[in-house]
Amino acid sequence: MKFANVDLERLKRQGAAETIFGEGKSSEQIVRIAKTLVEAGQEPVLVTRINEEKAKAIKAAFSKKFAYFPEGRIGRIGKKKSPDGIGKIVVVTAGTSDIPVAQEAIVTAESLGNEVLAIFDVGVAGLHRLLARLDDLRSASAIIAVAGMEGALASVIGGLVACPVVAVPTSVGYGASFGGIAALLSMLNSCAAGVSVVNIDNGFGAGILASRINHAGMKGK
Amino acid sequence: MKFANVDLERLKRQGAAETIFGEGKSSEQIVRIAKTLVEAGQEPVLVTRINEEKAKAIKAAFSKKFAYFPEGRIGRIGKKKSPDGIGKIVVVTAGTSDIPVAQEAIVTAESLGNEVLAIFDVGVAGLHRLLARLDDLRSASAIIAVAGMEGALASVIGGLVACPVVAVPTSVGYGASFGGIAALLSMLNSCAAGVSVVNIDNGFGAGILASRINHAGMKGK
Amino acid sequence: MKFANVDLERLKRQGAAETIFGEGKSSEQIVRIAKTLVEAGQEPVLVTRINEEKAKAIKAAFSKKFAYFPEGRIGRIGKKKSPDGIGKIVVVTAGTSDIPVAQEAIVTAESLGNEVLAIFDVGVAGLHRLLARLDDLRSASAIIAVAGMEGALASVIGGLVACPVVAVPTSVGYGASFGGIAALLSMLNSCAAGVSVVNIDNGFGAGILASRINHAGMKGK
Amino acid sequence: MKFANVDLERLKRQGAAETIFGEGKSSEQIVRIAKTLVEAGQEPVLVTRINEEKAKAIKAAFSKKFAYFPEGRIGRIGKKKSPDGIGKIVVVTAGTSDIPVAQEAIVTAESLGNEVLAIFDVGVAGLHRLLARLDDLRSASAIIAVAGMEGALASVIGGLVACPVVAVPTSVGYGASFGGIAALLSMLNSCAAGVSVVNIDNGFGAGILASRINHAGMKGK
Amino acid sequence: MKFANVDLERLKRQGAAETIFGEGKSSEQIVRIAKTLVEAGQEPVLVTRINEEKAKAIKAAFSKKFAYFPEGRIGRIGKKKSPDGIGKIVVVTAGTSDIPVAQEAIVTAESLGNEVLAIFDVGVAGLHRLLARLDDLRSASAIIAVAGMEGALASVIGGLVACPVVAVPTSVGYGASFGGIAALLSMLNSCAAGVSVVNIDNGFGAGILASRINHAGMKGK
Amino acid sequence: MKFANVDLERLKRQGAAETIFGEGKSSEQIVRIAKTLVEAGQEPVLVTRINEEKAKAIKAAFSKKFAYFPEGRIGRIGKKKSPDGIGKIVVVTAGTSDIPVAQEAIVTAESLGNEVLAIFDVGVAGLHRLLARLDDLRSASAIIAVAGMEGALASVIGGLVACPVVAVPTSVGYGASFGGIAALLSMLNSCAAGVSVVNIDNGFGAGILASRINHAGMKGK
Amino acid sequence: MKFANVDLERLKRQGAAETIFGEGKSSEQIVRIAKTLVEAGQEPVLVTRINEEKAKAIKAAFSKKFAYFPEGRIGRIGKKKSPDGIGKIVVVTAGTSDIPVAQEAIVTAESLGNEVLAIFDVGVAGLHRLLARLDDLRSASAIIAVAGMEGALASVIGGLVACPVVAVPTSVGYGASFGGIAALLSMLNSCAAGVSVVNIDNGFGAGILASRINHAGMKGK
Amino acid sequence: MKFANVDLERLKRQGAAETIFGEGKSSEQIVRIAKTLVEAGQEPVLVTRINEEKAKAIKAAFSKKFAYFPEGRIGRIGKKKSPDGIGKIVVVTAGTSDIPVAQEAIVTAESLGNEVLAIFDVGVAGLHRLLARLDDLRSASAIIAVAGMEGALASVIGGLVACPVVAVPTSVGYGASFGGIAALLSMLNSCAAGVSVVNIDNGFGAGILASRINHAGMKGK
Repeated sequence: MKFANVDLERLKRQGAAETIFGEGKSSEQIVRIAKTLVEAGQEPVLVTRINEEKAKAIKAAFSKKFAYFPEGRIGRIGKKKSPDGIGKIVVVTAGTSDIPVAQEAIVTAESLGNEVLAIFDVGVAGLHRLLARLDDLRSASAIIAVAGMEGALASVIGGLVACPVVAVPTSVGYGASFGGIAALLSMLNSCAAGVSVVNIDNGFGAGILASRINHAGMKGK
Repeated sequence: MKFANVDLERLKRQGAAETIFGEGKSSEQIVRIAKTLVEAGQEPVLVTRINEEKAKAIKAAFSKKFAYFPEGRIGRIGKKKSPDGIGKIVVVTAGTSDIPVAQEAIVTAESLGNEVLAIFDVGVAGLHRLLARLDDLRSASAIIAVAGMEGALASVIGGLVACPVVAVPTSVGYGASFGGIAALLSMLNSCAAGVSVVNIDNGFGAGILASRINHAGMKGK
Repeated sequence: MKFANVDLERLKRQGAAETIFGEGKSSEQIVRIAKTLVEAGQEPVLVTRINEEKAKAIKAAFSKKFAYFPEGRIGRIGKKKSPDGIGKIVVVTAGTSDIPVAQEAIVTAESLGNEVLAIFDVGVAGLHRLLARLDDLRSASAIIAVAGMEGALASVIGGLVACPVVAVPTSVGYGASFGGIAALLSMLNSCAAGVSVVNIDNGFGAGILASRINHAGMKGK
Repeated sequence: MKFANVDLERLKRQGAAETIFGEGKSSEQIVRIAKTLVEAGQEPVLVTRINEEKAKAIKAAFSKKFAYFPEGRIGRIGKKKSPDGIGKIVVVTAGTSDIPVAQEAIVTAESLGNEVLAIFDVGVAGLHRLLARLDDLRSASAIIAVAGMEGALASVIGGLVACPVVAVPTSVGYGASFGGIAALLSMLNSCAAGVSVVNIDNGFGAGILASRINHAGMKGK
Repeated sequence: MKFANVDLERLKRQGAAETIFGEGKSSEQIVRIAKTLVEAGQEPVLVTRINEEKAKAIKAAFSKKFAYFPEGRIGRIGKKKSPDGIGKIVVVTAGTSDIPVAQEAIVTAESLGNEVLAIFDVGVAGLHRLLARLDDLRSASAIIAVAGMEGALASVIGGLVACPVVAVPTSVGYGASFGGIAALLSMLNSCAAGVSVVNIDNGFGAGILASRINHAGMKGK
Repeated sequence: MKFANVDLERLKRQGAAETIFGEGKSSEQIVRIAKTLVEAGQEPVLVTRINEEKAKAIKAAFSKKFAYFPEGRIGRIGKKKSPDGIGKIVVVTAGTSDIPVAQEAIVTAESLGNEVLAIFDVGVAGLHRLLARLDDLRSASAIIAVAGMEGALASVIGGLVACPVVAVPTSVGYGASFGGIAALLSMLNSCAAGVSVVNIDNGFGAGILASRINHAGMKGK
Repeated sequence: MKFANVDLERLKRQGAAETIFGEGKSSEQIVRIAKTLVEAGQEPVLVTRINEEKAKAIKAAFSKKFAYFPEGRIGRIGKKKSPDGIGKIVVVTAGTSDIPVAQEAIVTAESLGNEVLAIFDVGVAGLHRLLARLDDLRSASAIIAVAGMEGALASVIGGLVACPVVAVPTSVGYGASFGGIAALLSMLNSCAAGVSVVNIDNGFGAGILASRINHAGMKGK
Repeated sequence: MKFANVDLERLKRQGAAETIFGEGKSSEQIVRIAKTLVEAGQEPVLVTRINEEKAKAIKAAFSKKFAYFPEGRIGRIGKKKSPDGIGKIVVVTAGTSDIPVAQEAIVTAESLGNEVLAIFDVGVAGLHRLLARLDDLRSASAIIAVAGMEGALASVIGGLVACPVVAVPTSVGYGASFGGIAALLSMLNSCAAGVSVVNIDNGFGAGILASRINHAGMKGK
């Protein structure tokens, strides 16, 4: 397979198999890489940023073994692991439009052995909605805060909890949101401590990071 | 006076005299412009962005008529007007370092006939500090929200009140705050309605705008 | 409704119901959120950034209660409020291409109980067109200035009137207008006082802010 | 104390006292805030971004209780907590010039009850230096990767370990490093999973976040 | 002279001698280059961006032949040419702080044989000041419009006159003026035709260009 | 016509009728504006940035009076004026892909009474091609230099001639050309004097400016 | 051929014929330029950035003489030269998605008389894959490193080898990769010496440069 | 030496010792690192970006072994190698102000065993100066083109020669040169093939790269 050089040691080295970034790869390429991973026992295998068409091609190849989550454009080959982390990961979004990015994070985290609680549409324009969920927020071992526009959600949560907050800026917005830059900068400059940031719309990255935090100190998670 | 073309109609046209932007002008230039304004009966005259040295020169020329406010680097020649607005202007800062910009706004608003209430250091990293002042916030006819770093304060206040919120991004911060760009973008993309933005560190502009809002419908304010 | 967390206190808290941002939401989601708001007595409900197709779906659900304004891609469920503000809001555009953004502002302001006067295509390249409307401009309690390209309109109006000016940069232009950045920066740096800025193409935000200014001091506007 | 609104609940709420950001505050302001915190039993108190002069003023006020770390321009009032975390935090720098930022992270993490191992000057231009420390890297429960210029260190470490990697871009570099933007973007786009990013030169933020990861699941850390 | 390769054909080829850009050159280098030019009969020689110290060194070398204009930080060796252009160049500034850039343009244009009329401090915040000079503006064969902040002056003048307008953005302003970027973009996007732009603070470039326009069709101007 | 406020004085005031910017206007709007201009005797009328479809609609309304130039996406209603300028305008492009922008400039300049000479594809990668046309370049009263990518053409021509050079950056290029920013910055920083710049892809603006230069000193050109 | 000014001396002057940049040129234009080159004996002729449709048109004109490489969207008219360089060019990609850019480089280099070795998908997230090819890397006389996202590959290779490394940033990535800017800045700031950079996605430029390096000191290569 | 991890294998691995980047390192740190390198036989050792004061400290430690080149702020410990490359490296600058960057490149290249020819102040504003040196340019095995402002020099040279051109953008310029960004983008978008780019002001990087090109195919250069 000249076009790919699959990393078959990753499950052992890092506690999770290589994830297939589906964008810019053909269905055939994805299936061939996935087969290589599955044959090497690297399950579950996540495939991110795939449309319905690519999902169908993978379904054809792996049948029931494959589950597709259309909102988050993510699929999984093989079973998700049973939750074995320290505690719970809470995924919060500012608005309804941020849910696709959140779902990518949720599927990722659940696949890697984490209990996940989702809280959607609690942006700071109506602060009481967020404050009503304070107990849930404080029950987390890691929080993923997903927000576009001005991204203030991350700072507000960061000031309320004691666990690490993984902030995910989204490209939701228009004009001077510049495709997520406003939220990204906002989150990088958070006045609250304990907040770190991943790439714009990178729900997958947030999910894997939160999983590592939720497995801190455990070997190979 | 070849170097300046003083606008002697502004008090009548816009309800406030021309303000002297002190940066990039010599003490002598400032004094000469100020005299022209005072002689034309355009008091009070504000002078912004002046250091101690320029303040001394103006003091020498106008004596007791001149008051200097060093933290905000702003001075006023002549008396402030008695409050005659619709209600109260509330000026809020996220942190201690934002106070100089806030003071520029406060002196401006007070000079133009407004009652002003100041609330400092209530950034969103400790949300209870802000929520404790909710009654004060809701008593305003206009709020000036001054914040650097991620500027989340403006959105949070915007979601809590029914009056116009004038957001002032400040250059407080470092790294990816880019001298106030992060706060500026954050405020422009506020998910809360009723928020508008002035230039970075532009306390003066916020003060004059809040004054106009607080005098809405009154002639020439 | 897991995907949304409707803010049913907003009418009481802020004098206007939650507005539904239609972009990135499905027709079904919009209708469900709208029904929740209407059932809670939060009329009128504005829905912004919707195309003809989404407008049809809302029409199907609310029938005569719903009015759609295609140029501004905005709709309203329920009647607009009778004008009860301090004075009049004047909405000005620099060119013909800025009208869609202006219409979003106009529908928003009219829905919230404001008398609105529209003046289109009076950009500074033909200054006499603007100066011919000086009396109208000076009759406003708030002005919304909508302009793309270099956005000079906001500064010129700002120098002519005594009321607050809400500047809306638009994405009209090409090349170094960078999708509205040139106009945005121009407006943020206005040499005229009393000008504040909202996000690029944010007619809705300008409308709600002008309405708040036009109701300054009135409870819950 | 009108200029500050000290958050005296933070130790209880978030497991660490409010940290004093020393930049833009006077020595007197710092000392007064610090005293308020110490009197409320919120030790240890960290003071970041202070020069020698401010350090002397704090020393004068707190005497032996205060320790200053000049390279990282950070000080601590009160004793550091005994290590009580899950494991060890490893702090890695790409070059010698990145050490000041690393030291801010180290002092922060050590103060909050963490064992810290420092590995300096192992940038990717001489990869064998990094690979020689692979066992140390793999012994961490969290890694802080500090790098300027192109910031490749974070990605390379991210590919080698299974624990969370907190990447800190530094302003080390010149020309197209744009004060740390190059490293920041590089880290945000890391091809390795498990990497998140804090603000440029934000050693403090990295330290507190790594501490929270290293105390994942423990109450109030 | 290894460090410089003086262009001794420029007077003949382009109607004006090579100008010495003084920034980043030592006094000695400037004097040596100037001597080479003068000896080759290339007078008058302009030297731009020089401080008092460098001006003194040039004075020492050329004595009465040299005139220094401190506000514009520009000097001239040799006599200015008698006006021999088509008409008059009008140089306009928005504010007092833009005068140094204007002066660089004025000295340049006058040296190259142009009649120049200066109009200062007529920015659009007080439009009547500009309109009062309409006859002067319309008497020009070329106009140089010098403005910082939002740079609206160029568009407004562009709409009033029929001659070419050379727009010079200045670095006057703060915050989101970004050292002249706001004015630069504003001028590039001017809605008025007939406006072109030179680099930020480039009074020299504007002067030479206006001179060429004012000598259009004449050989070697 | 509520949507437009046609400037019927422009021909008299500025020597050329208002040009209709076709982008963002419907065919019907364009035709109505054009009719207003034609009825007021403001011919010729230029219509820029129109596609084939809009061109057809204008053709239907004005028949033979209308000429369309598809490469430059520009049309003219009415006859072009006879050349009556000082000399000749030379339009130069760096590459074949820059020709559409050049054609917009050529049609504009020819319509306004200028003789135009076009020289295409003489970019600096093959310098002999440009040098072979030196006599033509030096015969111009104004040169329009059209180039994308690095835009070096403007500087090279600027160093060879004595007339004003109007530089037009184009969006030709990819990657770090950023849609014309690279060429724009290059041209603004030209080391050759006498070069000024218009907006990216703004052939029309260059044409009208060159025409004004070529009519310098003539009334109302 | 008015639209193009073919450089028929380039083969002699620079050792390779003019390459036809296919983007923005019609099939007919490409064929006509190609014929001019072929008739002048300037083979082989490369045509870059062409889609299937344009490739067909060229095939129709040149039949067997033309070879098309669809992944790299590049074609060649005439035979590739026999390898006559100093050594071998090694082309490395970080991921599968970078292969199209790499192929453009490979076809270019092979056409110009170079032996090329391709190594794909050896990004730094799985460092062992790269280290496994160290001998191959060290056998090169020039290396082309092709990477998107954070572009760390160039620095890591730069630290391992002694030959020149030509870094090609690609637009592979999303969010804060900003279409290749992140990789571009990363490569420009490489901490490893011996690395230089070409434009984003510019495989052709890298290929020709590597060929020149591989023919260093040979006449006209 | 905890602060540094000197790479003692670099001479063997890459044909040149580790260079000490002097900025941000103390004199003491520099001397200690240098001694480690010298003791390991890694001469000559280059030290870049050092001021007079640091140069004195190194002189004190290494005496005659150390040579300092103040204009380029670079020093060398040990003898330069005898020229043993394929041919000659030609270093060209656009202006006098670019010489310091050029000197850094020259000292670097000469130290590593290259014959270097310097050609200064031949920018494109006076093209005949460059064309007069065409034979010298064509005699090079590699050319280093150093230019600020619009950086057109690199493209023009790139079109004239057949060898690799290493372009070095400099921070010379003002306004929209943005500290070298204009030249950087210009060089990255060069329409001439065979040009690659290093970081702004990175004379050292250009020198080492040119040396590698000039030793292409030789072991460990």
